[in-house]
Amino acid sequence: MNAIGVDVGGTKIAAGVVTPKGRILDEVRYPTPHSPGTLIENIAKAIKEVGDGHEVGGVCLAVPGLILASENKVVFSANLHAIEGIPLKHEIEPRIGLPLTIENDGNAAAWGEFRFGVGSEADHLVFVALGTGIGGGVITHGVLMRGAQGSGGELGHVTIQATGPRCACGNHGCLEALASGSAIARRARELAIENPDSALGRLATRRQILGEDVTDLARGGDEVALSVLDETGRWLGVGLAAFVNIFNPEVVAVGGGAMEAGELILKAARREVILRARPPSRDHAEVQVATLGPKSGVLGAAALARDASSGEYLLGD
Amino acid sequence: MNAIGVDVGGTKIAAGVVTPKGRILDEVRYPTPHSPGTLIENIAKAIKEVGDGHEVGGVCLAVPGLILASENKVVFSANLHAIEGIPLKHEIEPRIGLPLTIENDGNAAAWGEFRFGVGSEADHLVFVALGTGIGGGVITHGVLMRGAQGSGGELGHVTIQATGPRCACGNHGCLEALASGSAIARRARELAIENPDSALGRLATRRQILGEDVTDLARGGDEVALSVLDETGRWLGVGLAAFVNIFNPEVVAVGGGAMEAGELILKAARREVILRARPPSRDHAEVQVATLGPKSGVLGAAALARDASSGEYLLGD
Repeated sequence: MNAIGVDVGGTKIAAGVVTPKGRILDEVRYPTPHSPGTLIENIAKAIKEVGDGHEVGGVCLAVPGLILASENKVVFSANLHAIEGIPLKHEIEPRIGLPLTIENDGNAAAWGEFRFGVGSEADHLVFVALGTGIGGGVITHGVLMRGAQGSGGELGHVTIQATGPRCACGNHGCLEALASGSAIARRARELAIENPDSALGRLATRRQILGEDVTDLARGGDEVALSVLDETGRWLGVGLAAFVNIFNPEVVAVGGGAMEAGELILKAARREVILRARPPSRDHAEVQVATLGPKSGVLGAAALARDASSGEYLLGD
Repeated sequence: MNAIGVDVGGTKIAAGVVTPKGRILDEVRYPTPHSPGTLIENIAKAIKEVGDGHEVGGVCLAVPGLILASENKVVFSANLHAIEGIPLKHEIEPRIGLPLTIENDGNAAAWGEFRFGVGSEADHLVFVALGTGIGGGVITHGVLMRGAQGSGGELGHVTIQATGPRCACGNHGCLEALASGSAIARRARELAIENPDSALGRLATRRQILGEDVTDLARGGDEVALSVLDETGRWLGVGLAAFVNIFNPEVVAVGGGAMEAGELILKAARREVILRARPPSRDHAEVQVATLGPKSGVLGAAALARDASSGEYLLGD
C-alpha cells in the first residue's frame, strides 16, 4: 500500500505519496509557518492535498528535532520551536483520517537511504546529513536505531574536540560545531580575513560569505576555499572514524546540502577515517555520498509509515 | 541447557559452566600462554576440565581483540598477539567436541550485564569497561550490536579530543587515551612530579605509581589523587555523553578494574553527561557501576553460546 511521507523542515513542508518500491507518485510543498496553530494546519493541508485521489495506508512525519516517541511529540527543535511540545498524532490524525507516526528527520532520511538509496544492499548503515546543523541516523542489523525514547541517532552532537568551539546545542566541540554548513561558513569568513587576496577574501569585501559560496569558489580553484573544505572534511572524518569503530557498518553515507561539495569534503574525511578507525571495520566501511538527495526524508518517512503499520519495521524489511 | 563461557584475558583464561539463569556451577582458571599452540591447548583444557560432569550445549570464547566473526578469528589484539589470525572454531572444536563461537570480550561482558546484571531490566544498554584499555559493548533494541563483521562496539577508540594524547591504537585523543586505567596512571605520575608534597608525590619517590594506587590515596583523602580521578571522570563523561546522544540508552554501565574507584570517577562523569548530552536522552540515561564485576565476561559468553545455538540471540532473549 502507498504511504505518505512528510518532511517538516525549518523553511518548507514537503509531502509525498510513495509506493512500496519507493516511487514518489505525487508531491506538494508548503512554506513552514512558525506559529504552532498554522503549522499543524499546513501539515494537515499538505497531507490531504497530496493524498487526494490516492489509496494511502498511513503517514509519517519526519520532524527536525529530538522526539519522545511515546508521546508523539518533539521535545526540542533548534530550527522550528513552534513544533515543540505539540502532541502531533493527537492533533493531526483527526484532521486527516489516517494513522500517523513521527520520526526524527535524520532517522527518517537514514531509513530512506537504507530502503531505497545508497544503503539498499546493506544491513548496517550510518547516515550523516551536513546541513546548517548535522543530523544523522543509524541502521544496525537492519534495525533503525531509535533508542529507548526515539531520540537516538543524534550523531551531530558527539564531542570530537572537547575543548573545541561552542555548538548551537550549548556543548563544546560537537561534530556539528566543526563540520556542518555553519562551520564551513564560519571557517571561510575567518580565512577570508586572513587571505584578502584570495577569491574568498575578495568576495568577503562585497557580502557575507555563505557555505555554498565556498563550494563554488573551491570548484573554481581557489586554494583558500579548497582548504576550508579540506579542513571540514578532516573534522568530519574524525566523527566518521568514531562511527566506523562503534558500528562496523558496510556503508557510511553523507548527505545534506553541504554535500554539493562532494569529494572536496569526502576525500579528506576518508583519509582521516583510515588514520583513526581500526581494522577490520576501517577497511570494510565505504564512505559515500548519499544518493537520494533532498528526497530522502519524504521517502524514508513514507517507508516508516508503511513499516510501522505492518509491524515490520523492527525487523528492517 | 548449560553453556560454557570462556574469558580469554592477557594474563588468565577463566572458564565457567553457567546455567540459563546465570548461575556459575563450576569455574577454572589457567594462566594465558603467549605462544599460539599452547594458548589453544590451554583454552581447550580449561573447557574440558570445567565441563567435566556437566551437560553442556555449547561454548563461547570472549576474546580480547577485534574479531572477524565470519572466520571466527581475532584480527588484532593489543594484549594477546598470540591469538591473532588463529581460526579458533576450527582449531578448538575438534578438541572439545562442542560447538564453539567467539565474541569480543567487551561485547560479551555487555551481554552479561544485559542478561544478568545492571541492564537486566533494560532494552538499551551501553557498557564501558575501564581497564588498562577501554572496551565496551552496546545492546540496542535488545540486540547485541556486533556490526557487519562482528567488530562493532569498539567504544574505547572514539575520538573525544582530536588533538589529544596518542593512544595505544595509533590514533590521537581516543576515549581510551584519556580515561583508561593507563591514562589514570600517566596523569598521576605527571601530577606527582608537580605536587611533591602530596601523598601521591611522596609515593612517587619510592616506586612507580599504578592506577590502583591513585584510588587508594584518593580514598585516604589525598587531594591530588582525587583530582586525577575527577579529571579522568570528566573525560569519561565526554565519551559517555556522546554514547547517550547516539544510543538513547536506559542504562550506561561502567565496569572494569578502574571502577574500584566507583563514584570518585563516576560523579564527574555524570556532571559532564549533563553538560554535553541532550534531552530527552540525557535525563533518561542512568550512569551506573556495572554489577557483575570480573564475572561479566564468563556469564555473557555463556549466554551468547546458548543464545547462538538456539538462534535466539538476534532477538535478545
